[in-house]
Amino acid sequence: MLRRVMDLHREARVRTGAEADPQPAVGMVGAGQLARMTAAAAVGLGIRFRVLAADADDSAAQVCPEAVVGDYRSEADLLAFAADCDVVTFDHEHVPQAQLTALEAAGHVLRPGSAALWFAQHKLAMRERLSQLGARCPRFEPVASLAEVAGFAEKTSWPVVLKAISGGYDGRGVWICQDEAQAADVLSHGLHLIAEEYVRFERELAILVARSPSGHGAAYPIVETVQRDGICREVLAPAPGLSPAKAARAQRLGLELARDLDVTGMLTVELFDTSDGLLVNELAMRPHNSGHWTIEGARTSQFEQHLRAVLNLPLGSPALAAPCAVMANVLGGDDPDLRSRLTHVMAADPAVKVHLYGKPVRPGRKVGHVTALGSNPARVAERARRAASYLATGIEEP
Amino acid sequence: MLRRVMDLHREARVRTGAEADPQPAVGMVGAGQLARMTAAAAVGLGIRFRVLAADADDSAAQVCPEAVVGDYRSEADLLAFAADCDVVTFDHEHVPQAQLTALEAAGHVLRPGSAALWFAQHKLAMRERLSQLGARCPRFEPVASLAEVAGFAEKTSWPVVLKAISGGYDGRGVWICQDEAQAADVLSHGLHLIAEEYVRFERELAILVARSPSGHGAAYPIVETVQRDGICREVLAPAPGLSPAKAARAQRLGLELARDLDVTGMLTVELFDTSDGLLVNELAMRPHNSGHWTIEGARTSQFEQHLRAVLNLPLGSPALAAPCAVMANVLGGDDPDLRSRLTHVMAADPAVKVHLYGKPVRPGRKVGHVTALGSNPARVAERARRAASYLATGIEEP
Repeated sequence: MLRRVMDLHREARVRTGAEADPQPAVGMVGAGQLARMTAAAAVGLGIRFRVLAADADDSAAQVCPEAVVGDYRSEADLLAFAADCDVVTFDHEHVPQAQLTALEAAGHVLRPGSAALWFAQHKLAMRERLSQLGARCPRFEPVASLAEVAGFAEKTSWPVVLKAISGGYDGRGVWICQDEAQAADVLSHGLHLIAEEYVRFERELAILVARSPSGHGAAYPIVETVQRDGICREVLAPAPGLSPAKAARAQRLGLELARDLDVTGMLTVELFDTSDGLLVNELAMRPHNSGHWTIEGARTSQFEQHLRAVLNLPLGSPALAAPCAVMANVLGGDDPDLRSRLTHVMAADPAVKVHLYGKPVRPGRKVGHVTALGSNPARVAERARRAASYLATGIEEP
Repeated sequence: MLRRVMDLHREARVRTGAEADPQPAVGMVGAGQLARMTAAAAVGLGIRFRVLAADADDSAAQVCPEAVVGDYRSEADLLAFAADCDVVTFDHEHVPQAQLTALEAAGHVLRPGSAALWFAQHKLAMRERLSQLGARCPRFEPVASLAEVAGFAEKTSWPVVLKAISGGYDGRGVWICQDEAQAADVLSHGLHLIAEEYVRFERELAILVARSPSGHGAAYPIVETVQRDGICREVLAPAPGLSPAKAARAQRLGLELARDLDVTGMLTVELFDTSDGLLVNELAMRPHNSGHWTIEGARTSQFEQHLRAVLNLPLGSPALAAPCAVMANVLGGDDPDLRSRLTHVMAADPAVKVHLYGKPVRPGRKVGHVTALGSNPARVAERARRAASYLATGIEEP
C-alpha cells in the first residue's frame, strides 16, 4: 500500500516528539513564483525549505513538500509557521510591521528583519531614509489634499506621480496624474500618499546585491529593465552600453544601501538612468523579477544567493555565466493553453530556457519567463522576446 | 490555523472526485539523488513530478511534494503509483521485468519501456544485443562453473572480470578475479554470471544522449570519467584531448544505440578508451553520475533533458555552457558533519557549485557533488577536486 511521505513524517513526529533533522530549515512567507524558484535552488543546498502559502494551489505550494496554507496577516499563523523554521524570509513585502515585530519578540530570526523591511514597505520612510543617506531620489513630498498636490506640481510640473505610502487599490499603488482631475480621483480613495516628480528617464536600470548577516556583500552586474504599462517585460544583463565607471558606482550604491538599511538576503534597487545621473526609484528586499536571468546567466542565481545570505553562508559568485543574458516575461494572453505552444518554442530554439510558474493563465498575468544567453545582445534579446511572446499569445511580436 | 497543502489537495480530490490539473505528471520510481535533481529540473517545466520512494527520508522524498512510499517490486504499489502519472520513468534499473510488463499491459506509459530497460538490467542480453548491432564490446561469455571461467581465461588471460547478469551480493555485481581461487569465491554465491576480458584501457569515457519517443535525439559532448575502487570520482567535460573525429564517432554510436534499443529518456554509455579503439562497458537508461556536470555546464541539464524526452517535448541544447566543466563526487568520510565544512568551501571558492543530496553521511557513500567551470581544464579540475575532498573529509587532497 502506498503511503504519503508527509503522513509518515507526521506520524514520526507524533511518535518521537521531534524531527531529528540536521538540515537547517528556511521558511518563506508567500508562495508565488519567487518562492517556487527559491524552492528549486534549495534542493542543491541540502536544506529544508518551507512556504506559507495563501492557497493550496499557489505556485510554490505545488513544488514544496513542506508547504502550509495560512494567512500572512495572522500573528498566530506566522508564529506557528516560524516555529518550524530556523530562518524566516519573504517573497513579498506585505506582512504588517506589528506581526513582524511580534515574530522577532518571540525569538524568531527574520531575514531581512522588520527594521529593514520597513523601508521596502513604507515609501515615505524609504524616501526620507535614502535622502538622509545621500542617495539621489526623485523629488517627493507627502500629500494629503489636492491643494498639496497642486503645490507640488508647481515646483516640479505635471504630470505628477502619486504613490500609496503602503498598499493601494485595484492592485495598483502608483498613478501618473496628468492634471488635477486625475489626482483628485486618486485622492478620493483616502490612501496615504506621496507625490513624486515625474522623471524623464532614458532607461531603467536595476542593482541586484546580496548581503549576509555577517556583512558579506556581493553585487551582480547592473541590468537594464524594460517596463511596459508598469510591468517588467524584459531584463538585459549586463545593461547595454553602461560605462564601467557608472556600473561600478551603481554596484557600490547597492552594497552601501544594503549595509546602511541592514538588509539581509537579496536587495534590488530600481533606478532611473537620466541625463543628469542615476536616481533611486524603488527597493525590494527579496528575489526580484530583475534577477530571474541569474538562474542561467550568473554563476549563482539570485534564489540560491538569497538562501545563502539568509543562512549566513558565504555568498556565491555573482559573475556572468555568458557574455549576455536576456530575460523576457511571459504574460498571459487570451488563450490559456500555454502547453501546446511550449512544444513549438522548445523546437524553434533548443537553447532558450523556459520557466513556467504553474499558474493559471489570465490576461496580463506573469505566468512564466524565458531566458536566452549568448554573445550578441540584440540577437539574444530577439530570441528571448520571440519565445516569450509566442508562448504568451502564439504571435511572434516583431 | 495552518493547513498542510497535501491535506487540502486530498480533501479537494475527495470532494470533486478528480484533480483538475492541466499539468502533465511524471512519476519516477526511486527517490535517490537522481530523482532529487530531476525534481529540481521539473520546477521550471511547470509539470507535476512524483516519486515512489522506498523510505520517507529518501533524498528525493525530501524535496518532492508528491512523494509516496512503496515497494518498487510490488505490482500493486507500482500500479497505484502509475495511476497518478501520465508517464512513469525510473531512477534505477531494479524494477523486475514482470512488474514492468504488467504496468504496460495495464496501459501505463513507461519511458524507457520494458523492452529497452531489459538491456540495462540483463548484462548478457545487453552484450548479445550490442554484438548483434556491431557495437564493439570486451569479449564475454556466460559462465556457470570454474572450468568455464578457466576456459575463458585461457583465451583472454587473467585477470577475468565476472559480472552478475543481474543483481549481485554485498551491494556489488562486478568482481575482478586475479586467479581461479578468487573466481571460485564469486561462483560460490550461485549467481548467474558472465565472464568478460579485463580491458587494459587508457581511460574511461561516457556518452550521454537523450532520445524522445518521436525519435528526436541529442548528444552531449563526450566526457572522461575517473573511477576509483569502482566508484565514479570525477567527470571531465569535454574529455580532454579527445580528437573531434573520435568524439563524433562516439556521439553517433550513442545516438544509434538509443535508436536501436528504443531508449526514451537519457542513455549513458560507459566506454573504455583503449589503444585499439572504443569498447562499450555499461549502459544506463536514466540520468547518470557522468552527467551531473550538465546542471551548470551544459545549456540543458541531463535532468531537464530526461523530463523533456519522456514527455516527448523537443530536446534542449546539449551544448557546453562553459569551455570546460569538472564534477567531483563528495563521498562520505568519517565525520558526518558536512555542513560545518560547507561554509569553508563556499568561502574558499564562491564560483564552485555544491550539490548536497540530503543523505546521512556514511563512509564511501555519495552524499553530494561539486561542479567547477572555467577555461583551464587542469585548474578547473583542481578546484572541483579540492572542494569535494575538503567537504568529504576536511582534508584537501593533493
